[in-house]
Amino acid sequence: MAPENPMDHDETMPKTVGEIGERGLIELMLRHITPMPNMPIPFWDDVMAVSLGDGRAAVMNTDMLVWSTDIPPGMSHFQAARKAVVMNFSDLGAKGVQPQAFLSSLGIPRDVRVDDVEELAKGFEAGAREYGGYVIGGDTNEAPDIIISGVAFGVGEENRLMKRKGTTPGDVLAATGRFGDTAAAFKILLEGVDAPDALREKLLASVYTPNARVREGIALGESGAVTASIDSSDGLAVSLYDLSRSSGVGFKLHTLPISAMAEEFAGIHDMDPGKLALYGGEEYELVFTVKPSEMDMAREALRTVGCDLLELGVATSTRRMVLVEDGVETLIKKGGWEHFTG
Amino acid sequence: MAPENPMDHDETMPKTVGEIGERGLIELMLRHITPMPNMPIPFWDDVMAVSLGDGRAAVMNTDMLVWSTDIPPGMSHFQAARKAVVMNFSDLGAKGVQPQAFLSSLGIPRDVRVDDVEELAKGFEAGAREYGGYVIGGDTNEAPDIIISGVAFGVGEENRLMKRKGTTPGDVLAATGRFGDTAAAFKILLEGVDAPDALREKLLASVYTPNARVREGIALGESGAVTASIDSSDGLAVSLYDLSRSSGVGFKLHTLPISAMAEEFAGIHDMDPGKLALYGGEEYELVFTVKPSEMDMAREALRTVGCDLLELGVATSTRRMVLVEDGVETLIKKGGWEHFTG
Repeated sequence: MAPENPMDHDETMPKTVGEIGERGLIELMLRHITPMPNMPIPFWDDVMAVSLGDGRAAVMNTDMLVWSTDIPPGMSHFQAARKAVVMNFSDLGAKGVQPQAFLSSLGIPRDVRVDDVEELAKGFEAGAREYGGYVIGGDTNEAPDIIISGVAFGVGEENRLMKRKGTTPGDVLAATGRFGDTAAAFKILLEGVDAPDALREKLLASVYTPNARVREGIALGESGAVTASIDSSDGLAVSLYDLSRSSGVGFKLHTLPISAMAEEFAGIHDMDPGKLALYGGEEYELVFTVKPSEMDMAREALRTVGCDLLELGVATSTRRMVLVEDGVETLIKKGGWEHFTG
Repeated sequence: MAPENPMDHDETMPKTVGEIGERGLIELMLRHITPMPNMPIPFWDDVMAVSLGDGRAAVMNTDMLVWSTDIPPGMSHFQAARKAVVMNFSDLGAKGVQPQAFLSSLGIPRDVRVDDVEELAKGFEAGAREYGGYVIGGDTNEAPDIIISGVAFGVGEENRLMKRKGTTPGDVLAATGRFGDTAAAFKILLEGVDAPDALREKLLASVYTPNARVREGIALGESGAVTASIDSSDGLAVSLYDLSRSSGVGFKLHTLPISAMAEEFAGIHDMDPGKLALYGGEEYELVFTVKPSEMDMAREALRTVGCDLLELGVATSTRRMVLVEDGVETLIKKGGWEHFTG
């Protein structure tokens, strides 16, 4: 029970989860875990993988939605369940893996209406089929809140998996799309900020009906041009910091990929649209790095699935995150979403 | 949203989960799910599986522990986490599959002590290593209660998987051990029933530190002698009913496999020890059926891993569950554990 460094910890006042945050908690937990030999993907990536011994890897991910904490106002049961699939499939897509199956472990309070649970089932089905996967089962339990613990499963070629780690200085930083819609939507949903009806509806759709870049990830994986990849579910800034930490690089961005709707919303309210783009979350674009000599291949791979590659900047050897616009350098702070703290 | 049979449902008073129970809920949910083609294991089994296309199947299971509902008084964080592994690995073992990996999706309230979460990590590690598997990762989330959603993963030969379905009348019904310890322990823990210290301690250990029959399941699977198999996590009676439903058979038992400790506990309190054996749960013996001509093989397979095969009775063509002792036939009712109801 004694912590490795006794100075970390005052026995009279044990630390709580809220005090150390999600990342600190995972670090502490991993101290006690023996890594599996020959893990195709190390800890601290988006997914977990087990070698199948024939060049392939079973790739899995698990993510939990807790109704009272994670489900925004106005989201239906169908949408919440579909989102549970999207968020789990997105992580597989970010590694270049086709999701084949979805499992759900459901916690349900006794007084939940049966037709709401049927809507959850329809949402799982819709999400899985939309991305070419199937719901293969799960488990139901009594719980004090609706808990949707989802699991995605797929199989990938071990040497084609796009990991978080792999960027070297000089690599091009790129994304599959623009950011900021969900940050604007959360301002509407959680802070009561206003927006014209048509804009409001489209922004809210980004939260209620998010889309995963699964086909895009598979195309990028097959191209072999990508050196590292992550999905942006915790926000663009956090994704940059995660890529940075994994490979020991920094990034110099020449542009922030701000969505047109986020620009419009920011304009109405005199907000900084860059902040909406950086510090959102729950949007599932891929953020990745590419060897400069292979940019054409990456661009072409995305084009075959109808997606434009957005070039954001370049990886650097100093672990700083900066935006350089009109010769002015701005530090990109981390911010973004982490469980338990903030 | 309309139910398939409008008579099932009164729109003015929607049914709740508590009214229809776990089985009814799963039936309703499955109405909306498209089965994956060529599922190596159909719905309503203990595990989920995906064909790997080379004669092997990826086999998975997910089971959730909710602290306030599922964790008995006195169970430590370490024990709860270890149990989450045991219960998930047990289902793989019941299919004859070696568990390779464990994933946990954790829900944690903000005020939980960090050292309790470290104990969870140690429990995952201990459980996984004990059965030859590894913890390969997971996910942490804020939640109103401690939620441990576990996932077990392993790979099996598709044509060797021991399914729930497969029993034909005349097959021998057997088990890997005796029952009743956990039922007695729950009487101590939840109903305040007394027991001498030494007995009490050993009974409680059956709840706090359960064991999965993984090596036994793998040995039985390799023997090829087993026609159907299930783990007894919902109690012996429920396991018999589940096997019965899957294969359309009944069972005639000539003996109830009652543990010595359950006999002793029942003797002290003038209880029926048979009821302790039938209506417990959270014990992880394997209950399985064997072709009569292959009983020696099954017995020998278990002997190689140090386990005695207990012969309980025979499968019948009438879907009744009876115990015949001294010529007297007693109907075995279902009882046992189901979420949401009772």
